[in-house]
Amino acid sequence: MVVASGSRDKTGFFTQGVKLKATMVDMARSMRKLGQEDPRRVVHSLKVGLALILVSALYNYHPLYSNFGTNNTIWIVMTVVLVFEFSVGATLGRGFNRGIATLLAGGLAIGAHHLTKNLGRVGEPVVLGLLVFLQASISTFLRFFPKIKASYDYGMLIFIMTFSFISVSGLQGHVIFKLAWERLCTVSIGGAACVIVSILVLPVWAGHDLHNLIALNIEKLGNSLEGFGDEYFKTKGGEACIDDKEILEGYKSVLNSKKSEESLANFAAWEPPHGRFPFRHPWKLYLKVGTLARECAYRIEALYGYLNADMQESSEVSNIIQEACTIMSVESGKALKELALAIKIMVQPSSADSHIDKAKSSAKNLKSLLKSGIGEDIDLLKVIAGVTVASILIDVVTCTEKIAESIHELASTAQFKSAEPTLSPEKLHSGQMKCVKSPQILNCPHVVINVSESTPPSSPSESSSAPKASKQRMDLYHLFLAQDIS
Amino acid sequence: MVVASGSRDKTGFFTQGVKLKATMVDMARSMRKLGQEDPRRVVHSLKVGLALILVSALYNYHPLYSNFGTNNTIWIVMTVVLVFEFSVGATLGRGFNRGIATLLAGGLAIGAHHLTKNLGRVGEPVVLGLLVFLQASISTFLRFFPKIKASYDYGMLIFIMTFSFISVSGLQGHVIFKLAWERLCTVSIGGAACVIVSILVLPVWAGHDLHNLIALNIEKLGNSLEGFGDEYFKTKGGEACIDDKEILEGYKSVLNSKKSEESLANFAAWEPPHGRFPFRHPWKLYLKVGTLARECAYRIEALYGYLNADMQESSEVSNIIQEACTIMSVESGKALKELALAIKIMVQPSSADSHIDKAKSSAKNLKSLLKSGIGEDIDLLKVIAGVTVASILIDVVTCTEKIAESIHELASTAQFKSAEPTLSPEKLHSGQMKCVKSPQILNCPHVVINVSESTPPSSPSESSSAPKASKQRMDLYHLFLAQDIS
Repeated sequence: MVVASGSRDKTGFFTQGVKLKATMVDMARSMRKLGQEDPRRVVHSLKVGLALILVSALYNYHPLYSNFGTNNTIWIVMTVVLVFEFSVGATLGRGFNRGIATLLAGGLAIGAHHLTKNLGRVGEPVVLGLLVFLQASISTFLRFFPKIKASYDYGMLIFIMTFSFISVSGLQGHVIFKLAWERLCTVSIGGAACVIVSILVLPVWAGHDLHNLIALNIEKLGNSLEGFGDEYFKTKGGEACIDDKEILEGYKSVLNSKKSEESLANFAAWEPPHGRFPFRHPWKLYLKVGTLARECAYRIEALYGYLNADMQESSEVSNIIQEACTIMSVESGKALKELALAIKIMVQPSSADSHIDKAKSSAKNLKSLLKSGIGEDIDLLKVIAGVTVASILIDVVTCTEKIAESIHELASTAQFKSAEPTLSPEKLHSGQMKCVKSPQILNCPHVVINVSESTPPSSPSESSSAPKASKQRMDLYHLFLAQDIS
Repeated sequence: MVVASGSRDKTGFFTQGVKLKATMVDMARSMRKLGQEDPRRVVHSLKVGLALILVSALYNYHPLYSNFGTNNTIWIVMTVVLVFEFSVGATLGRGFNRGIATLLAGGLAIGAHHLTKNLGRVGEPVVLGLLVFLQASISTFLRFFPKIKASYDYGMLIFIMTFSFISVSGLQGHVIFKLAWERLCTVSIGGAACVIVSILVLPVWAGHDLHNLIALNIEKLGNSLEGFGDEYFKTKGGEACIDDKEILEGYKSVLNSKKSEESLANFAAWEPPHGRFPFRHPWKLYLKVGTLARECAYRIEALYGYLNADMQESSEVSNIIQEACTIMSVESGKALKELALAIKIMVQPSSADSHIDKAKSSAKNLKSLLKSGIGEDIDLLKVIAGVTVASILIDVVTCTEKIAESIHELASTAQFKSAEPTLSPEKLHSGQMKCVKSPQILNCPHVVINVSESTPPSSPSESSSAPKASKQRMDLYHLFLAQDIS
């Protein structure tokens, strides 16, 4: 019995050991994945360590600290930990909030002490308590304002904290001044360490991230649309060139990107000019593009519901509808990808217009064709999925046009370069096509190399940029062009 | 010249005064609006003030503080300001994070001091510095894990801060123990003040809010769908009963509710049993319902693109399609509203099934009707909008069914009461109808009164709960039922 129990214990111990090992391996794997997804995460972690080391070194070897004493130096460490954020903009925003709030609250608290110092041993704490109650309540309420919440939430917290502490502390006269001065110094030292490390060591700019996120989202929509066209075509016997599910469903991450875009735009507003982004770069316009991209993503979500819908046996009508759908989705997709590239390399997005025109004329032709009558007693049920897809795609084309307009506005406000007509569109396309397989436009250094070789705006040789993946599709497109009657 | 300048100055001063007044009035108005939207914001602000007053009073009148000294008492104030959140769950979460992180970091830092104390005057700070660097880097990296970010982000910050401070401080032996003990005491007092005020004074439960938010979102979808049916019908000469744009477009707020739902579910997990929510209430299932509701909202967004689409002159086919659309959207809308009510009053949502069945059979009938052929040479363009709307609505009916399934799962897991068949469905409907005009289900106290009088699950008298707003629609519905051939 004892032996059995002992052996069971050993087996249990062994099993637990194996489980623990599996958990550790899992954890190591997901840490590696987290770092590989965005190596800047690793850099950021090391930067926080570095900033702390810097203030520690200052603490251990600098005479400055002897003036402050242990209890004050914690504020330097605390400031570093609470202010150091992932991007420069977020760090500057928090540092600014902390500095200004400390200054304001300190000043007001000293004023409050001055006002109440003659009220006696009972009166003074009562009135001070009332003031603390009032400012805490009012400041807390102000934090509910969306605008204050977005940019000054941390400052409000520090304001309440500093005012309350100085008021409650019961300190008098010059001791308060000394305390307030020391607090300001420590906060400044900590804040400066954060800002310096954040900007000087491999800086992460929120503005740059917002710029890339918007370009990436538009590119994902483009890939999903182009992929939809190819997949839809494949069901009719054609050959699909994109079948990676991850790329097809890229639009899904656009559906819920509102919060990230808004916070990046908020942080970007704190940042100084950097890289290709000058002072007063129109960050708000990125949000406009983002909103329109989301509206397009909602349509694509509706569209993807029909990707695997029952296909009825083909008829002449459903063939025509499906071909038109393919053109609309592929051309909208190409237009969106050109727009994404234009944002990425900061040139005027003129090359997208020809694709939009093609998508629009395909929509128009489809309408005309249907209007002129098919001349046979058709079965509505057989074309219902096709008609719906066509109808949503017409909507998508409109969305694409709106996105293009908003990007044109962004490009002219932000003074993007004009595209130089030095290269044939094929080259640009070949450069871009490599991007299709990559989940992140950020990882396409070759795109940047193409900057000075961008495409001419709707040149006479425009037709050479038309889709070549499928000859059948191309022929149909010409058929549609020839049939344009309206 | 001098006079003119002076008069201009006066005018300028006056204009500025008027502007300042306008700004003040604007601000007061938006503060009032903010408070009226959710009066709990005002209560929360006063609660924060109250908690601060409590710890101040303790500070001024309790001998406890004499043991701590000024520099330690700031930690009580700081804990109150940083831990006190809007909901009980968030407050408990932050308090727990702060307490555990302080304890852990304090213990580890003391251990680190113990290990390094024999390394000499140069060796000790160097090794301690290395340890600070390592723990700060690793902890910062761990904060990027989504799960840790969601529940333990604040704890990680406090951990880095406390460990770094104690390691860097250069304090020795019993001084460190005293410091760590004092820190733990102050954090406990501050945390206790927060938790007590948060729970005892008009508590805001995140779980309750999540429950209401999900019910409200489902209700908004229902209103939008029902409104769509009515609006769509109105364009054909019928009379619409909902034309408040705010209610029609309620679905829009569902599109971006993911983040709020997730954070509420996170906070709810920290909360003790409260009100109607027992221990281990299945908060995760609410997120599932929320995700399905968002998918439905994407479809409704696509649908609303066709609300103002050009209506072609009516034909027999488009009439049939539009009538079927009206039934599908109105019945799905009614089903969603019944489901919302079932969540709200926590009963089994059986009464919604009959509406879903009607919507489904309408979809089926439409398909059969189209399949049996219309027998005339129809103009596809004239029915394209109708066919698209019908097709999206068939998708919406599927979504509604999925939502109903997930709510059934929620109801059985959370052991909602069964509906008691003591009242005819009309009464419930009349009670519910009052809700339609109200933008928030939360503000419908009369609904709660109906709890024990809820509707029987698909009783034989089911047809009496059919839509009565429009006789014409009803007749068509019966026509469809009679024609059911599949």
